[in-house]
Amino acid sequence: MHATLRTPVCASLGLFLSCSIVLFAQAAEVAKSPQGPNDEIGMLNTVTAAQRLAVLQQIASGKVYDLSVDYFVGMPGLADLGMGDPPYHMWMTHTPGGVKVEKLAPAGSTQELALYDDALLMSTHSGTHLDSLNHLGYGEKIFNGFEASQYLGNKGWTKAGADTVPPIITRGILIDVAGEKGVATLPESYEITAKDLQRALSKQGTALRPGDAVLIRTGRMTAWPDPKKFVPNEPGITRESAAWLIDHGAVLLGADNMGVEKFPMASESVHTYVFAERGVHLLELVWLEELAKDQVYEFAFIAAPLKLRGATGSPIRPLALPLQTKKATEGTVTTGQE
Amino acid sequence: MHATLRTPVCASLGLFLSCSIVLFAQAAEVAKSPQGPNDEIGMLNTVTAAQRLAVLQQIASGKVYDLSVDYFVGMPGLADLGMGDPPYHMWMTHTPGGVKVEKLAPAGSTQELALYDDALLMSTHSGTHLDSLNHLGYGEKIFNGFEASQYLGNKGWTKAGADTVPPIITRGILIDVAGEKGVATLPESYEITAKDLQRALSKQGTALRPGDAVLIRTGRMTAWPDPKKFVPNEPGITRESAAWLIDHGAVLLGADNMGVEKFPMASESVHTYVFAERGVHLLELVWLEELAKDQVYEFAFIAAPLKLRGATGSPIRPLALPLQTKKATEGTVTTGQE
Amino acid sequence: MHATLRTPVCASLGLFLSCSIVLFAQAAEVAKSPQGPNDEIGMLNTVTAAQRLAVLQQIASGKVYDLSVDYFVGMPGLADLGMGDPPYHMWMTHTPGGVKVEKLAPAGSTQELALYDDALLMSTHSGTHLDSLNHLGYGEKIFNGFEASQYLGNKGWTKAGADTVPPIITRGILIDVAGEKGVATLPESYEITAKDLQRALSKQGTALRPGDAVLIRTGRMTAWPDPKKFVPNEPGITRESAAWLIDHGAVLLGADNMGVEKFPMASESVHTYVFAERGVHLLELVWLEELAKDQVYEFAFIAAPLKLRGATGSPIRPLALPLQTKKATEGTVTTGQE
Amino acid sequence: MHATLRTPVCASLGLFLSCSIVLFAQAAEVAKSPQGPNDEIGMLNTVTAAQRLAVLQQIASGKVYDLSVDYFVGMPGLADLGMGDPPYHMWMTHTPGGVKVEKLAPAGSTQELALYDDALLMSTHSGTHLDSLNHLGYGEKIFNGFEASQYLGNKGWTKAGADTVPPIITRGILIDVAGEKGVATLPESYEITAKDLQRALSKQGTALRPGDAVLIRTGRMTAWPDPKKFVPNEPGITRESAAWLIDHGAVLLGADNMGVEKFPMASESVHTYVFAERGVHLLELVWLEELAKDQVYEFAFIAAPLKLRGATGSPIRPLALPLQTKKATEGTVTTGQE
Repeated sequence: MHATLRTPVCASLGLFLSCSIVLFAQAAEVAKSPQGPNDEIGMLNTVTAAQRLAVLQQIASGKVYDLSVDYFVGMPGLADLGMGDPPYHMWMTHTPGGVKVEKLAPAGSTQELALYDDALLMSTHSGTHLDSLNHLGYGEKIFNGFEASQYLGNKGWTKAGADTVPPIITRGILIDVAGEKGVATLPESYEITAKDLQRALSKQGTALRPGDAVLIRTGRMTAWPDPKKFVPNEPGITRESAAWLIDHGAVLLGADNMGVEKFPMASESVHTYVFAERGVHLLELVWLEELAKDQVYEFAFIAAPLKLRGATGSPIRPLALPLQTKKATEGTVTTGQE
Repeated sequence: MHATLRTPVCASLGLFLSCSIVLFAQAAEVAKSPQGPNDEIGMLNTVTAAQRLAVLQQIASGKVYDLSVDYFVGMPGLADLGMGDPPYHMWMTHTPGGVKVEKLAPAGSTQELALYDDALLMSTHSGTHLDSLNHLGYGEKIFNGFEASQYLGNKGWTKAGADTVPPIITRGILIDVAGEKGVATLPESYEITAKDLQRALSKQGTALRPGDAVLIRTGRMTAWPDPKKFVPNEPGITRESAAWLIDHGAVLLGADNMGVEKFPMASESVHTYVFAERGVHLLELVWLEELAKDQVYEFAFIAAPLKLRGATGSPIRPLALPLQTKKATEGTVTTGQE
Repeated sequence: MHATLRTPVCASLGLFLSCSIVLFAQAAEVAKSPQGPNDEIGMLNTVTAAQRLAVLQQIASGKVYDLSVDYFVGMPGLADLGMGDPPYHMWMTHTPGGVKVEKLAPAGSTQELALYDDALLMSTHSGTHLDSLNHLGYGEKIFNGFEASQYLGNKGWTKAGADTVPPIITRGILIDVAGEKGVATLPESYEITAKDLQRALSKQGTALRPGDAVLIRTGRMTAWPDPKKFVPNEPGITRESAAWLIDHGAVLLGADNMGVEKFPMASESVHTYVFAERGVHLLELVWLEELAKDQVYEFAFIAAPLKLRGATGSPIRPLALPLQTKKATEGTVTTGQE
Repeated sequence: MHATLRTPVCASLGLFLSCSIVLFAQAAEVAKSPQGPNDEIGMLNTVTAAQRLAVLQQIASGKVYDLSVDYFVGMPGLADLGMGDPPYHMWMTHTPGGVKVEKLAPAGSTQELALYDDALLMSTHSGTHLDSLNHLGYGEKIFNGFEASQYLGNKGWTKAGADTVPPIITRGILIDVAGEKGVATLPESYEITAKDLQRALSKQGTALRPGDAVLIRTGRMTAWPDPKKFVPNEPGITRESAAWLIDHGAVLLGADNMGVEKFPMASESVHTYVFAERGVHLLELVWLEELAKDQVYEFAFIAAPLKLRGATGSPIRPLALPLQTKKATEGTVTTGQE
């Protein structure tokens, strides 16, 4: 029962999909999409071309904020949770010395090739990344009722993977909860409430509207990239605050921590709720430090995951360009986390 | 000797960086960047915030073209060249059944977690991807004189990697060479000449200008994803046509084939030339079919590689939004290659 | 129904396990082990310490035959079957140049460390390898009734993996079927019959007895390591001939091809039969060329897979030392496949 | 200067190779092998077929000691040293559910295939393993003067790799240093001296002789597999004690810790010394607990690494069978570490 979801706000916004999902959803049951039995992307369906254009036309300057961290050997990640996920790994597959010893040369090349090549291994949930709707479900089912027995291969799902996620161009909203509270970072395991969000939005002078990508700043990135400080007991949102955000228009939820929600997870995780009951993707390990410093709370949000077929997630490099409604600093591209 | 590079066009455009590079560059020698000894990104430096804004403001509609292919087990790639690169691989690290047997549960979770997780292994040059300037060089040196002995670790370079590449927002130009010639795809190993490019540009009514990301359509994607048809003997550009494009303003060169240049490579490869002598990145395996079908030749080009520290390349998902100068089809997001 | 298995030979040998398995086994049902519900190794239980000692004491000389192929990038393997298995891959994780750039040095070391390190990725069924009893089953069950729902994690089974396989020291028997027929290799997809085996044994003057590790030579290794010639349509044994061997004492079946059985597999595979119904492990890609050339048909067989916890297989390097009953060539160690 | 190496013992044993190496070796210089410029295995050359046979003939019983640990996700290893090596990882490539969804079936099979397959990634120095002579060197050279510029590819060396190591069958000697001192384990970073070794040998009543594989027990395995307790500051041998062992006949040195030598390494590591100056391989993470408990100090040592082409190391599963000179317990195979 999610009575709170059937709020007047929801009704007044006419968010058919969102509210419909609510109607179908029950605790521990996956939602059916009003877009029909083939829908794999949930709320991202609701962003229209008109919305995209409107946002793009409000861009204030050519300044681009880079919302991604670097990916590197030793970075914090799933491997630190002790569930047996491989850490990020990278290696050279070709160097000039090796190429010479192995007598490798592309056909036709007479020139000695000074070739450098590398390969990587990583969890699809490494660094700044998007969670697909097939990342968690209830029992054998994920969002829209797709069943593992029918759609889960050994090389990923055949439904609702990262490859199904369209390019996301919509209004982005930063909610700087740590900033509103005047702290560098929220305390360990702090549960961000809907009240916290409302207070920060109010201080920022920002109002949510349907189609927003909402990015929440907990301040956790101040501990990046020290795995011991970054990984355990992160502050984050709860089901209640997640529901509030989605009810008020969010079609994508992100944060500057590993799991958006607070850790340790509540017995009923936010992850399962937003994927399976609300059709909302998550964006994790987002770099929000420059946006916060420059007090950029509204921006064109542009992001697209790699189209990793069937994957439960994908690394992503989201960009933000401040909108005209906000004083945007002229200048060059920010470099994100370095 | 690259006499063709010191053209009046170059001079008249005032392309300081490009022409400076020419002045410094000699056959089989890496260029020094006029941006100084620390520069790692070459021509991408020259795209200004003003240029970015101008392009964004010309976007005609919210229609987004997705220029990326899918990534999947079995896709064509470097592994097909027989040089020992690993093919794209992906696997599940968690499924509900496994989680139950392994008694894994995040701290705090009492709910049985229906968790699906995956990991992947790939060449950084898999699928649609960007080549970093450290991908090839001459002898021990790459662009701007960075030496392997000083900067090449076992986990990638510490210079000029994918992590140094800024978000790229600039005008994109499609040159549909196959289209101009009225063929589905150019013949095997066809060498695209500067004349070919000029003829296509002329037919399209498009003129290059400084800062353009230029994407060349050979038609090769009509053979995708059959490795046997797609990989060997691709048509592509030559040093001469690459030089012509860069001299006329291109800061990024891309194509719908594996290596932009024609295969088998000429004894002096385009790769080394554009990276080491011109400071220009490459974009490979770009999906251009919808752009070509809709005759969208000018667009806002938006792309940013993953910030893989030190990597010689990175998967990327470039986007294109038609500019007002062109009749853009209203509607939804294209889905790219499926 | 496996009436052929209840042969007088079986009865007279008193092979309790083997015959019991037959009694319990039915088509498409897994056998229960007479060793009890915890047994994970089947017929390997039946080799006694006395048998091991007897074999060791008959060793004729210090000459060792190496029955393993090399493992290398590009070797034929599962990846060639097109089911998405990764090919063997290997790379350097440390070289002196990289160590210097990355400023890596073990604590205490003041000496510049000229360190070379590598890592590998492979199917557990790469090169010469042993198949565990959990490699195939019927439905959800494997040998002895272990169910996937209870024992299959995402990092392997918790039952009947390669780690459960004890060191194998027993009498080894080479059956050189290709040799008996006077051909370099058996024809493509040739089905080796029990008659073929009997004829070769008879020509060799060898008789099977309980506890034998039986290695069958098809001659396929004459095509190694060309994937195109080696992988498709290999000659091999059938259920009928597998049953005959096990009934006559074999506790381990091996061959010089990829799957012991002939390819394409019969609708009822030998794999499932020997694992699930007979409790017998397989040994694949065994190098038998020197044994055959020297006409060594009886030998001490010494092999032990890596103890890869839960794995469905493991690379292995089996050794053979001729027994006194045979004229053994004095001399050095053979080097196996090179 | 290695004056201690030219001992009377060395001379009297006529250990040509060993002593010759000494003559050629100087500090920080690699040895040349008296076996000629193509020799890749050093002291292992000196074990003769006669020695092998003699050892095999002294085996007292069919009892086999398994000297290997298990390999599993989470096991301590190189990754714990923080130099960027990947930890052991393993995953399923096929399960019946996945096979069904992916519609994979080997040609010919009509039966629904209940197939389980897995793959692994590991450092070649994982678990119980052998170090090849190409694992460390001085500058650009390794044992016998092989130079990286000529022989180091991107997929391993082309010289002195694990594939060159012959099957090792020789007398094995356990030196139970922890046992002699009556402690469960030697203290952290304890330096085992030649005196310590002599005292333990004397107490055991064991004398070294040419060709021995010497395994040293520090007691460290009592901390296995806790990475925090097992990895840092292990007790081990020094150059001085390594030299003493080799001078007295050891052709292979092993121990029950990660690096045989004590950690932190001395400024001049034992590794480099034994590989590059003495041509002796190392065996690490050897499970010696049962041998020690049963006071089995002399045994037939049987081991062979995987023939990983060019690899700096290889997992291995060494076996020990007590010799008649010692009271051997009758019975079954020991299971090694579980």
